[in-house]
Amino acid sequence: MFAHNKRLQYTVRVDECNPGLANLMLEQFGGPQGELAAAMRYFNQYLAEDDAGRRDMLIDIATEELSHLEVIGTIVAMLNKGAKGRLAEGVDGEASLYRAISGAGNDSHVTQVLYGGAPALTNSGGVPWTAAYIDSIGDPTCDLRSNIAAEARAKIVYERLINCTDDPGVKEALGFLMTREIAHQQQFEKALYSIEPNFPPGKLPGRPEFTNVYFNMSSGDGDMRGPWNMEPTFEFREAEVAVDGGSGLPEVKLTSDEREVLEQAAMRLHSDPSADPMTGAMLGMNGGNGSGASGGSTDPQAAKKNAQRKGSAAAAKRSTTSRSTK
Amino acid sequence: MFAHNKRLQYTVRVDECNPGLANLMLEQFGGPQGELAAAMRYFNQYLAEDDAGRRDMLIDIATEELSHLEVIGTIVAMLNKGAKGRLAEGVDGEASLYRAISGAGNDSHVTQVLYGGAPALTNSGGVPWTAAYIDSIGDPTCDLRSNIAAEARAKIVYERLINCTDDPGVKEALGFLMTREIAHQQQFEKALYSIEPNFPPGKLPGRPEFTNVYFNMSSGDGDMRGPWNMEPTFEFREAEVAVDGGSGLPEVKLTSDEREVLEQAAMRLHSDPSADPMTGAMLGMNGGNGSGASGGSTDPQAAKKNAQRKGSAAAAKRSTTSRSTK
Amino acid sequence: MFAHNKRLQYTVRVDECNPGLANLMLEQFGGPQGELAAAMRYFNQYLAEDDAGRRDMLIDIATEELSHLEVIGTIVAMLNKGAKGRLAEGVDGEASLYRAISGAGNDSHVTQVLYGGAPALTNSGGVPWTAAYIDSIGDPTCDLRSNIAAEARAKIVYERLINCTDDPGVKEALGFLMTREIAHQQQFEKALYSIEPNFPPGKLPGRPEFTNVYFNMSSGDGDMRGPWNMEPTFEFREAEVAVDGGSGLPEVKLTSDEREVLEQAAMRLHSDPSADPMTGAMLGMNGGNGSGASGGSTDPQAAKKNAQRKGSAAAAKRSTTSRSTK
Amino acid sequence: MFAHNKRLQYTVRVDECNPGLANLMLEQFGGPQGELAAAMRYFNQYLAEDDAGRRDMLIDIATEELSHLEVIGTIVAMLNKGAKGRLAEGVDGEASLYRAISGAGNDSHVTQVLYGGAPALTNSGGVPWTAAYIDSIGDPTCDLRSNIAAEARAKIVYERLINCTDDPGVKEALGFLMTREIAHQQQFEKALYSIEPNFPPGKLPGRPEFTNVYFNMSSGDGDMRGPWNMEPTFEFREAEVAVDGGSGLPEVKLTSDEREVLEQAAMRLHSDPSADPMTGAMLGMNGGNGSGASGGSTDPQAAKKNAQRKGSAAAAKRSTTSRSTK
Amino acid sequence: MFAHNKRLQYTVRVDECNPGLANLMLEQFGGPQGELAAAMRYFNQYLAEDDAGRRDMLIDIATEELSHLEVIGTIVAMLNKGAKGRLAEGVDGEASLYRAISGAGNDSHVTQVLYGGAPALTNSGGVPWTAAYIDSIGDPTCDLRSNIAAEARAKIVYERLINCTDDPGVKEALGFLMTREIAHQQQFEKALYSIEPNFPPGKLPGRPEFTNVYFNMSSGDGDMRGPWNMEPTFEFREAEVAVDGGSGLPEVKLTSDEREVLEQAAMRLHSDPSADPMTGAMLGMNGGNGSGASGGSTDPQAAKKNAQRKGSAAAAKRSTTSRSTK
Amino acid sequence: MFAHNKRLQYTVRVDECNPGLANLMLEQFGGPQGELAAAMRYFNQYLAEDDAGRRDMLIDIATEELSHLEVIGTIVAMLNKGAKGRLAEGVDGEASLYRAISGAGNDSHVTQVLYGGAPALTNSGGVPWTAAYIDSIGDPTCDLRSNIAAEARAKIVYERLINCTDDPGVKEALGFLMTREIAHQQQFEKALYSIEPNFPPGKLPGRPEFTNVYFNMSSGDGDMRGPWNMEPTFEFREAEVAVDGGSGLPEVKLTSDEREVLEQAAMRLHSDPSADPMTGAMLGMNGGNGSGASGGSTDPQAAKKNAQRKGSAAAAKRSTTSRSTK
Repeated sequence: MFAHNKRLQYTVRVDECNPGLANLMLEQFGGPQGELAAAMRYFNQYLAEDDAGRRDMLIDIATEELSHLEVIGTIVAMLNKGAKGRLAEGVDGEASLYRAISGAGNDSHVTQVLYGGAPALTNSGGVPWTAAYIDSIGDPTCDLRSNIAAEARAKIVYERLINCTDDPGVKEALGFLMTREIAHQQQFEKALYSIEPNFPPGKLPGRPEFTNVYFNMSSGDGDMRGPWNMEPTFEFREAEVAVDGGSGLPEVKLTSDEREVLEQAAMRLHSDPSADPMTGAMLGMNGGNGSGASGGSTDPQAAKKNAQRKGSAAAAKRSTTSRSTK
Repeated sequence: MFAHNKRLQYTVRVDECNPGLANLMLEQFGGPQGELAAAMRYFNQYLAEDDAGRRDMLIDIATEELSHLEVIGTIVAMLNKGAKGRLAEGVDGEASLYRAISGAGNDSHVTQVLYGGAPALTNSGGVPWTAAYIDSIGDPTCDLRSNIAAEARAKIVYERLINCTDDPGVKEALGFLMTREIAHQQQFEKALYSIEPNFPPGKLPGRPEFTNVYFNMSSGDGDMRGPWNMEPTFEFREAEVAVDGGSGLPEVKLTSDEREVLEQAAMRLHSDPSADPMTGAMLGMNGGNGSGASGGSTDPQAAKKNAQRKGSAAAAKRSTTSRSTK
Repeated sequence: MFAHNKRLQYTVRVDECNPGLANLMLEQFGGPQGELAAAMRYFNQYLAEDDAGRRDMLIDIATEELSHLEVIGTIVAMLNKGAKGRLAEGVDGEASLYRAISGAGNDSHVTQVLYGGAPALTNSGGVPWTAAYIDSIGDPTCDLRSNIAAEARAKIVYERLINCTDDPGVKEALGFLMTREIAHQQQFEKALYSIEPNFPPGKLPGRPEFTNVYFNMSSGDGDMRGPWNMEPTFEFREAEVAVDGGSGLPEVKLTSDEREVLEQAAMRLHSDPSADPMTGAMLGMNGGNGSGASGGSTDPQAAKKNAQRKGSAAAAKRSTTSRSTK
Repeated sequence: MFAHNKRLQYTVRVDECNPGLANLMLEQFGGPQGELAAAMRYFNQYLAEDDAGRRDMLIDIATEELSHLEVIGTIVAMLNKGAKGRLAEGVDGEASLYRAISGAGNDSHVTQVLYGGAPALTNSGGVPWTAAYIDSIGDPTCDLRSNIAAEARAKIVYERLINCTDDPGVKEALGFLMTREIAHQQQFEKALYSIEPNFPPGKLPGRPEFTNVYFNMSSGDGDMRGPWNMEPTFEFREAEVAVDGGSGLPEVKLTSDEREVLEQAAMRLHSDPSADPMTGAMLGMNGGNGSGASGGSTDPQAAKKNAQRKGSAAAAKRSTTSRSTK
Repeated sequence: MFAHNKRLQYTVRVDECNPGLANLMLEQFGGPQGELAAAMRYFNQYLAEDDAGRRDMLIDIATEELSHLEVIGTIVAMLNKGAKGRLAEGVDGEASLYRAISGAGNDSHVTQVLYGGAPALTNSGGVPWTAAYIDSIGDPTCDLRSNIAAEARAKIVYERLINCTDDPGVKEALGFLMTREIAHQQQFEKALYSIEPNFPPGKLPGRPEFTNVYFNMSSGDGDMRGPWNMEPTFEFREAEVAVDGGSGLPEVKLTSDEREVLEQAAMRLHSDPSADPMTGAMLGMNGGNGSGASGGSTDPQAAKKNAQRKGSAAAAKRSTTSRSTK
Repeated sequence: MFAHNKRLQYTVRVDECNPGLANLMLEQFGGPQGELAAAMRYFNQYLAEDDAGRRDMLIDIATEELSHLEVIGTIVAMLNKGAKGRLAEGVDGEASLYRAISGAGNDSHVTQVLYGGAPALTNSGGVPWTAAYIDSIGDPTCDLRSNIAAEARAKIVYERLINCTDDPGVKEALGFLMTREIAHQQQFEKALYSIEPNFPPGKLPGRPEFTNVYFNMSSGDGDMRGPWNMEPTFEFREAEVAVDGGSGLPEVKLTSDEREVLEQAAMRLHSDPSADPMTGAMLGMNGGNGSGASGGSTDPQAAKKNAQRKGSAAAAKRSTTSRSTK
């Protein structure tokens, strides 16, 4: 069960109302790397966790993240406080209100007009929070890695927000929140590496002929070698089709009924390669391809002439570059 | 202004309640090819349209689609009517209610538990309708083409639904709705081709050296020729990089400040290609790659041995297939 | 700041694992009427609330809803516990696992394959939770009404879930959660009616000539009179256009530049009403409208003949019904 | 199998970093008419296509669209390159960074704070890409029409972007991408019209009495006639209810059990038309409708008086307009 | 069936094109509190409603909301009319167009570049409309409360929009739309209170020992008493775990097979509390926690020293505050 | 630039069509842990990456993931092939088709009715793919951690899918795909640990007094100690408010104008704690809380009596548990 204390985990002091900055802060309130995502991520894992140590850790951190959601939400509320009153009471002239909510450095119109200056679970661009941000899948060696990555991302987004404000109280509270992500990341790391082995995740082993292969799928001048594609860990191989040694073509066994009806559909819907049909686009052309020039509106040769016109120029260049994709 | 008549555009007669079938019908109520998407598509275009003829046509059809939304929604409501009463009054035993809403051929639990048997603006799988389904962009030669395609799609989804039911009244009403899509498609076609020229859309002409080129980006045994990649309309060319004759590499002019700070970031975040670092995965291995066998948990050579083990087998096969991507 | 106690607000006792029932319960975990939506609704309002009494009440109830989220999430976790182990360890034969996750009465494949049997913030149909469910707008006379409605809805969804299970422990815990919605609704009502006046919301008065009018927008046999459209509260009026007494047609003042360029666009994109163009659909017909019969593929008269053929039959019927929309 | 060449299909040259313009370009990276939507649309169709010619064409174009995604993404990356370094290194003063990301002509705060200047799969307004943009339904006569429309839309969005920048290298690359949409549209047209017949889509014919009817659902001064609602293609009919000749009222056969329980629910939930109940709104009024004037807070006659007050004025006007909806 | 009259329910007069203001107005076109949400909310309820009086009222109001959608959409279209022409014809210089669509007070780039100046079903921040906004659940005592709340919210959003513009025609039309929300709210109130009893919703009574309890879940200085947590309606109780008198700990009966496989999984995935493993983060440290100071990169004692360093300072403060969460 | 070879990276062989299994496979086609998410994650990072080694690696792996998207999509297409033909041609009787698409073990109706049996970018539950799944933020030490976690998750989802099928060809291809995730994870690990230092991410150091603290936010019987909350890495502290030593209460400096208007709003919207207002719920009660018993419908004492009735029983229990949240 949760309980609440009306004092914050970290005191929030705001020097000056600033709804534009408030909007930016929403990134960590209702954004993908924000505190609700963190809290729900760990809370969900807690509910299904059977390991006593991790279970305790997950709910401790989930509860702290809820408390951080309160801190960042309070920053948003304080920064919006002045605007909220003016909006509710309609005391500004219309033009000045319009400028206030859509002016430079203050893109806060959704926050003001729709949410009335209250913190809303959107990111700084107004996109509503979605549980699609949560990537827990119910396996601890995966979920702990996801948590580690999530804490690292949250740390960076806080760092960016700190770089955007010079309000000392806001900076200080953000600094606390940022620091706690560093602590949480280390805690999840300890929990992950206390599982042995933890790699690869799951029970099924990989197929040994493919676990340490690096396929060079992109060719060209930027090819590089490094520990991520070299011995002793990796065998470096050029891209190849059908690495299983088969045809590389899909096969499926169909019943004769299935085959018959598929053939019937294929016949009905065949695009005849020997046709050269009049098309809707040809009906719509007036001289071909928007050149606006002369020519009948449905002349099937217009396009050909066009092709011929540019053919010679292109051919020259092509001869010098056509090997590049091989 | 809209007005409403309590009689439907087409009479709905349902032989037997069937909440599973009701769910299926939601596809054309709140699905991407359904009637709300159609109505809103044309209604939005109407609001911004300045051409008197199209403007009239768009609101005529939008209004008819709203009337179709009512027809398909009424089908859903009738098919759900029995279930709705049982649910509201809680008259079934629990086990029988559970079976009723989650049994085979009757995957209607969301519709029942969340929506109480009322039509909801979701598709047949429960995904809420989104305006992301509407592809109008405020240009009539595009929007009419989008409308033509949308009517074609709606026709097919109705055809599939008709194939799924043997309730004669449902079949008949669906047949009417399907037929109207055929009519609407023809109307939009007439409106499109009454604009001359209508191809290519917009005002900017294409660059003539690329308007009628077909690039063969996919190689291999399935290559085919047809009117879509042949003369007289198209010049067939092999894929090539940098068709502009340039380097194919991106360039950007940076100020010296920008360059300096980028170099600073690059240095800080360099992945050293000459390192062979211990990694988290290596810490987590127990004998390497899930083989579960012996071996120290952080032996940096484990992977190498693994690679060697499978190297010989793979090498043989590779020699026969390695040319296939060239 | 939040704190957590490892004991639940209400003890959860589950008689038998049942992943299909677990799925159903997700409706109140990550569904639109569920506990996360409730908790976040009140928590957000708390952050921006300046009235001391409401502020205290909002965080009390928000914290309780978080505790309810834990109760319903625990129910889900317990119902899934057996399936979770079998899935993680892969102990079932494939066919039996496939049946288990996609069989009748057990549509739990997403929960199992994607989430590993852990509670996920989706509704019972697998749709991820979205902050679009939260309708707070930062005005207490609105938000309290929204809260009242939300509690009423949550009560009903719990009632439906209770009707779907005969596990006594699950029933009992759901009964507690359902009851608390009744209590919360009453609390929000007290807070709303302690604001005087609270209707209409906001500061701007309505225009008196329209505040108590009922427009009869839908005609036909189902017209009814009741207190919602009668005196003493309402004046009943037939639908009418331009109730302001104006033209009902939109007007906008354009600069001469704007007008000129709009005319230019209009001319370029005019759909000529005097044309009868060949269309793409006509190119694609083979005898008209899928009849598959004889007739040239682009015969512009095909459709006309078709129209004539059915004209007479329709005409008769029409004469009897054509007044119905008046 | 895909392979990649590190050179672009078209060389990208950017004159000056401009994160505001970068944001605008996201429209064709992660927007509804952008290159990912195009690539995935054709790639999905390819996977299920059985016709050899179309199958080859679809993967050729899908692969080219992926290469275009790379071109537009590279434009975004180049335009953001300067901002990215400054952000990562935190070298600007806070106020200047704040202005830089939220100033006029540079609404890039989400791109900077959340994505660190890297291209993200959102549209230019920050809305994440969704597969709801893809309208393929597995029927070639529909999907090709959808493709034609999609290419037309993409052409126009590129045209608009070209009109928004004067960076010559960006303009040139956008011009290439725009031109290729023209080419692709023509290719899809050829493939569509090589299927005969291709209209109407599917196998079920329409019901002849409705395939060529135009219903005039919207009345009033803007009514227009044109080829889209005239002979020889269309029969023009006034809107009418129950075009099937039936009652226009829905019917469903209920079992006696179903009927009984529905009646029970109806009785329980009846809104009594003969009541004139006190309501919550009446409790909340203070003199009626926000006028703030005298009057008891729950006087059921307040509204009536209000109605009477305005009744006379409205009546006059109404007499002149009340026929307009007939 | 719906019919349409080309005249609006309220005449729209716009003094000056203003695409920035147009954007703001989208809030009530495609936003969560806007007219589409209202229309669809009541239309869906209509379809499933069996009570004759409510059924008539719901479709009357739904139809009026559709007519309001047309009014607000027309306002958007008029405000955008000038920009639309300039964009379509590309008559502005690029720099001036870029400024026009991304300048201060005119954040309309998505509306212009993607939608071409046509009204789109997004809110004022560009988020597409979603049916997740609709909260109908198929029970009239809930749905009427939801409708009451929705009308109250819509009233306020119109009030805020009115406060943002000084265009008299826009103000007047918005005033009409705002007023109608007041009328509709009263109508829904009358319909709700004509059901007796209407509280609590549904058939299942609450458990009497919990229906009138208020739990004080949040402690601290802001605790307040008021009618929402006092007698005669409420019993005020301190938060407590396990209000059922049980253990507060979840229980589930597992089969022996289930238990065995869960134990197997638990053993495999145990986080050993007695380990102190090297972690990935420790591998990645260089002197510990970003201090950049001396120290080996993987010194497991670095963190301990760090902890010791700050320990003494924190201890002092903690002694004064550590009781605050009790 | 991308190129394509019509042969797959791994040969797909399917023994028997099975649209239910096809649906399950969509999890790795259009699900959050699927191949599109992987490909786009690395592709986006590639576009913005300046480090030559990582840049090369990212595009190699992105291209391989696209090739995997093709493999899994081909599996889906093959499993659906039979159903697709039957659906297109409508050869089944309606009842049999209905059973086929909604029967036990075959919840494929969306896939069939909406997508025609073609692979669609949804997860196995029909939820459309969204870019919200992608968590890249433009910092390599974060993005590589996110990639490591993503590969781990994808490995597990493949493992679960393998456990659900006994088709040997499907199993084999899934085994290849699963193995490649193991390889990719190791590659990303090598790239991460080649950056030194890589922890904590970013440039700003944490505040040392909080980087290694563990707050025990959840109390109760499950408290555990382990390396994640113990020395030498962590200082274990009980939860406390205001860890900064301040008041824990938010502060904001308001201008006198802001303060005045806020007071005005507060007064207008005050919930009077000394009132005991009649409420809407009280109007709607009939004997209190659904008990259906005697009592006037708006008796303000009904609730009090109710509270008294249960007071004595609850009091006893409370005395034994009320300390539990301390």
